[in-house]
Amino acid sequence: MRPLLAICLALATVTPALAAEGMWTLDNLPKAGMQSEFGFAPDEAWVQNVMRSSVRLAGGCSGSFISKDGLVLTNHHCIVGCVGDLSTENEDLMRDGFLAADRSQERQCPNFELNQLESISDVSGRVREATQGLSGKEFADAKRATQSAIEAECVGEDSAKRRCDVVDLYQGGVQHLYQYTRFQDVRLAFAPEFASGFFGGDPDNFNFPRYNLDMGLLRAYVDGKPAELENFFPLNPEGAAEGELVMITGHPGSTQRALTVAQLEALRDRTLIDRLLSMAEMRGVLLQFGALGAEQTRQAQNDLFGIENGFKALRGRLTALNDAGVFAAKREAEAELRAFVAADPELAESVGDPWAEIAQATRTFAEFETAYGFVEGGRGFSTDYFGVARTLVRGAAERTKPNAERLREFAEASLPRVEQGLFAEQPIYPAFEKVKLGWSLAKLREELGADHSLVRQVLGKESPQQLADRLVDGTTLQDVAVRRALWEGGADAIAKSEDPMIVLARSIDPPARELRARYEREVQAVLQKNAELIARARFAKEGTGVYPDATFSLRLSYGAVQGWEYNGATVPAMTRIRGLYERATGAEPYKLAPSWDRARAALDLDLPMNFVSTNDIIGGNSGSPVINAKAEVVGLVFDSNIHGLGGAYWYDSRLNRAVSVHSGAMIEALRKVYRADHLADEILAR
Amino acid sequence: MRPLLAICLALATVTPALAAEGMWTLDNLPKAGMQSEFGFAPDEAWVQNVMRSSVRLAGGCSGSFISKDGLVLTNHHCIVGCVGDLSTENEDLMRDGFLAADRSQERQCPNFELNQLESISDVSGRVREATQGLSGKEFADAKRATQSAIEAECVGEDSAKRRCDVVDLYQGGVQHLYQYTRFQDVRLAFAPEFASGFFGGDPDNFNFPRYNLDMGLLRAYVDGKPAELENFFPLNPEGAAEGELVMITGHPGSTQRALTVAQLEALRDRTLIDRLLSMAEMRGVLLQFGALGAEQTRQAQNDLFGIENGFKALRGRLTALNDAGVFAAKREAEAELRAFVAADPELAESVGDPWAEIAQATRTFAEFETAYGFVEGGRGFSTDYFGVARTLVRGAAERTKPNAERLREFAEASLPRVEQGLFAEQPIYPAFEKVKLGWSLAKLREELGADHSLVRQVLGKESPQQLADRLVDGTTLQDVAVRRALWEGGADAIAKSEDPMIVLARSIDPPARELRARYEREVQAVLQKNAELIARARFAKEGTGVYPDATFSLRLSYGAVQGWEYNGATVPAMTRIRGLYERATGAEPYKLAPSWDRARAALDLDLPMNFVSTNDIIGGNSGSPVINAKAEVVGLVFDSNIHGLGGAYWYDSRLNRAVSVHSGAMIEALRKVYRADHLADEILAR
Repeated sequence: MRPLLAICLALATVTPALAAEGMWTLDNLPKAGMQSEFGFAPDEAWVQNVMRSSVRLAGGCSGSFISKDGLVLTNHHCIVGCVGDLSTENEDLMRDGFLAADRSQERQCPNFELNQLESISDVSGRVREATQGLSGKEFADAKRATQSAIEAECVGEDSAKRRCDVVDLYQGGVQHLYQYTRFQDVRLAFAPEFASGFFGGDPDNFNFPRYNLDMGLLRAYVDGKPAELENFFPLNPEGAAEGELVMITGHPGSTQRALTVAQLEALRDRTLIDRLLSMAEMRGVLLQFGALGAEQTRQAQNDLFGIENGFKALRGRLTALNDAGVFAAKREAEAELRAFVAADPELAESVGDPWAEIAQATRTFAEFETAYGFVEGGRGFSTDYFGVARTLVRGAAERTKPNAERLREFAEASLPRVEQGLFAEQPIYPAFEKVKLGWSLAKLREELGADHSLVRQVLGKESPQQLADRLVDGTTLQDVAVRRALWEGGADAIAKSEDPMIVLARSIDPPARELRARYEREVQAVLQKNAELIARARFAKEGTGVYPDATFSLRLSYGAVQGWEYNGATVPAMTRIRGLYERATGAEPYKLAPSWDRARAALDLDLPMNFVSTNDIIGGNSGSPVINAKAEVVGLVFDSNIHGLGGAYWYDSRLNRAVSVHSGAMIEALRKVYRADHLADEILAR
Repeated sequence: MRPLLAICLALATVTPALAAEGMWTLDNLPKAGMQSEFGFAPDEAWVQNVMRSSVRLAGGCSGSFISKDGLVLTNHHCIVGCVGDLSTENEDLMRDGFLAADRSQERQCPNFELNQLESISDVSGRVREATQGLSGKEFADAKRATQSAIEAECVGEDSAKRRCDVVDLYQGGVQHLYQYTRFQDVRLAFAPEFASGFFGGDPDNFNFPRYNLDMGLLRAYVDGKPAELENFFPLNPEGAAEGELVMITGHPGSTQRALTVAQLEALRDRTLIDRLLSMAEMRGVLLQFGALGAEQTRQAQNDLFGIENGFKALRGRLTALNDAGVFAAKREAEAELRAFVAADPELAESVGDPWAEIAQATRTFAEFETAYGFVEGGRGFSTDYFGVARTLVRGAAERTKPNAERLREFAEASLPRVEQGLFAEQPIYPAFEKVKLGWSLAKLREELGADHSLVRQVLGKESPQQLADRLVDGTTLQDVAVRRALWEGGADAIAKSEDPMIVLARSIDPPARELRARYEREVQAVLQKNAELIARARFAKEGTGVYPDATFSLRLSYGAVQGWEYNGATVPAMTRIRGLYERATGAEPYKLAPSWDRARAALDLDLPMNFVSTNDIIGGNSGSPVINAKAEVVGLVFDSNIHGLGGAYWYDSRLNRAVSVHSGAMIEALRKVYRADHLADEILAR
């Protein structure tokens, strides 16, 4: 992979070869380029329809409306949280899957929110006005206050049904207000077995060829009834032909393509290594916890899936950053931009040297990044209980403040989501929480050192596991009624609580807030301010025909169904259902679900199962619809290939591929494997 | 740490400040430097005495003879293998410690070998003659054959009591023959509790201040009786004063100070990351296996200790390599040497461009390093059973060949150690072996990919854990009689064996040997040949007053008892026994052993406990004596401080410190904590 990628990135700055590159905001689509390459340019009606037919899963995925009655198509791996929450030791929906026989049988997901984008507006002027001439704490405070005010005005009295996010685009160069319709009553209609959704498991993850039915169906409800929608995507079971234009609308979470070299070096030399080592050890703990038995496997499954998926993704990123050729190209691109600025006295005067400022902030952050991550970031307290306790402790303090002064996550517009999470009836397994918490407290001590004041404060004379056991045994926060009483009781109830998890969250809050304040003042504010200046330089050099880094806001990427060549071998664009049966071994993770074993004879084995396309995607795009020029669903994104893992930093159209479930396979499976004709019929109705 | 280190290394090439740097072979001590700095230069008698009083633990540690009756002082953490082997569920010597009331009660360690260096001779000429003009496979074969022949001649008929190793020094620039007296009857006389030997556990490991009694006493036996020695170190319970010259004689395992920049980059960008991630995950598995209960903790303890220790050491190395300043200094030093060569046409002609050759070999290795490590290196088969099976399978094949053609580890001179390991009665716990093997087989699949031919060959239709369970359940290799029968039965017995672990080792052997042959031919031979050329250039530039990289052969390092300054704070050189009691919390790993709790009132709490000195050491030095100019033991090395972890690549006298147990604390503990007056008296007798 190394030499090809390196060459390619070197070419990126001089040739227009990277046609499929880009995660475009819907108000700035590259229409001219699409027209010239594929003979298609979306008009405004098309864009509006696509925007309202696309869905964001607030927990971190994408999806699409695929019927007028609020049916939502997304990945199985995007709904495992719900499937796990609805499972018990005696009814394991994760293992066995779930199908609601009719709408009355659909089950509410305890902690799910869907967002449907209604409009985008530019609020850059107002933010810039509020922050003009400020820096450090003043800059951060003013920006936060303005964003919270804009969001509160946008939401108005209707926070239950409207969500508004101010989104920083182009590293803070531009702020847009995204207004969404919010759905918090979300129900599960269909989930395949884990063995079908995640066939091939971790070994096949981020690889291709694949044979996965990584799909799930949710339904959005309003006032207790299925949502009635004007916009949705019809599904075309024919799918897309090889070479055909396909577009992906979804919510890529985060890319770092505009980071400076100093920031990339910090990621490569420190941050990614720390994170990966921590994830690797946690993975070992979870694997071995699962080895205790089937029930423990079930309890740990969601965490393990998340860790393994994240580990593989970050490891791919680290490998990418360790490619000296690619890094040299990044260096060169930065040098070119700096030279461009230097050559224009007026620009140089207004831009200054943001690269040096960012490098300094990066060094500053290195001094306290570990403490920040473990204490403010919560890495030292890995238990759901601590998350609840901190939300209660901070929420009580923050809600007494004026909206503009609150931490962003407790701003008025954010409270519906906070409360939904806090009051969700989700299962929690004390033995498992003890393992995670005990381990993370040991890491806290290991990373900060046994003699660090915060470590001494947290542990006292106890060992990490002793403390974890005492906290988990003593807390009553599993009881939602207790949480509700503390939330409603506010600061006074929190101050009086003797719940040991509340006591911990309370006692660690002052140093945690101090770390956060330092981060916002000395790091975040500097990065935002200076990234904005770099963005200004880039606009000056390259014009506005560029796309911003991903920010978990709606984007469109376009490309073509197409395989790739590597090491002299050609990887075809499509797999067939037949391949699933050929790859099955009978042993995990290559064990077929019983339903697929039974259905074999009935299935058309020559139908396409999964396919790849050149679209530019990243984590968060999971569950995105793949649509054609007629805005019909022809596929469902669920992965990228291994070459796509460097996509956080750059895109290479020769190798990077999005991996999707074929629309025809979904209908075939719903009808013949799951006997879900009512859902297939609903999806195919126009 | 970063800025200081960076500055320091930059200075290293221009100032003589790094006085304590160097792991010197005993035939080339820097006598002039020692004389001028400390007013002491060892004479030949001193050197001969020190050489014969120092001991190598063949398993990977150092030690010293400290009585005429063969008593050996080393670290507790160097004898945990023996202590664990002698422990059972009902008699946990690791937890409780061990004291032989008299010599008749000393217990034989199942798999221990001690080596006492008798002589060093230069065999470079013979090796060079045999390899002159060769490269690739021919070079590797000729070198191996010559070394095996030299060793066989040296050992003669007396392989049970004599050991001979040809040691590559200066990256192959020089070959020396080290002749040892071999002791294979080694018995345990004293071990403290794990809680005393490893007080502070992983959190305090590689840190200082410390309060550890990391000592153990073995005794070498000859013909069933305690060895009678002419050379041993007396112990001086007064220890050494601050600033006093102290020397450490021991067996540093491996340093990489002469690696090229290309090799360091490969370590930094790939190899160390891979190893650390693997160790981190294994650590999580072991931690959680231990959480099953006290007996599982006991079973996993040795592996966990090894993993945690190694992890911390390698992580320190990676951090060191990620220091851009230090790396720049390495680059500069290499550029200087290359310029020196280029400026001398005759030298340039004879040396060529070994840096380019090494860089190419490094790239070549990257193509198959993973497969090599997992299949030939055995990382994919982490169980003691596989080690036994491979030794049997390979040993059967190799012993039919002439000595010169065998793999080095089966050469005639090496067989006594092979057989000792094979026939040792060491406990093995099937449930634990299943965990390790299942996990490592999963890693094999993960790292090579599910579709790799070797993975398919090994796993077939089974999952990693299914295969591990079947292999461990089916093998009878825990029975030493079975091993002996297979060893003595030779190739025929191996071919007929249906033991599943033998079947696995047999089937994987051809591809494993192929990987090894490719490594020796395309990597090792190139590295050795070209490292020798670089060594030649360095000799030309710097003369012979340089020390070779560590190779687990006897070295002397000299320095002074001395604390250090860091971030404006001074770390004193000594701790006192009192500090142990102050640091104890009652919770692991800061829980005092009961014996120390009881002894508190009797102890002189002001006595020194541990101390630091500027000596240049690395892993393998554990257990080394710290001696004064009179060749008296004043301490026992057991660790380095955290700054010393970059010692694999460079040495910084301002920050790097060796950490030792004070001689006085050992005597105080033996008398008052363990009531081992007989051992204290024996040690103090002159």
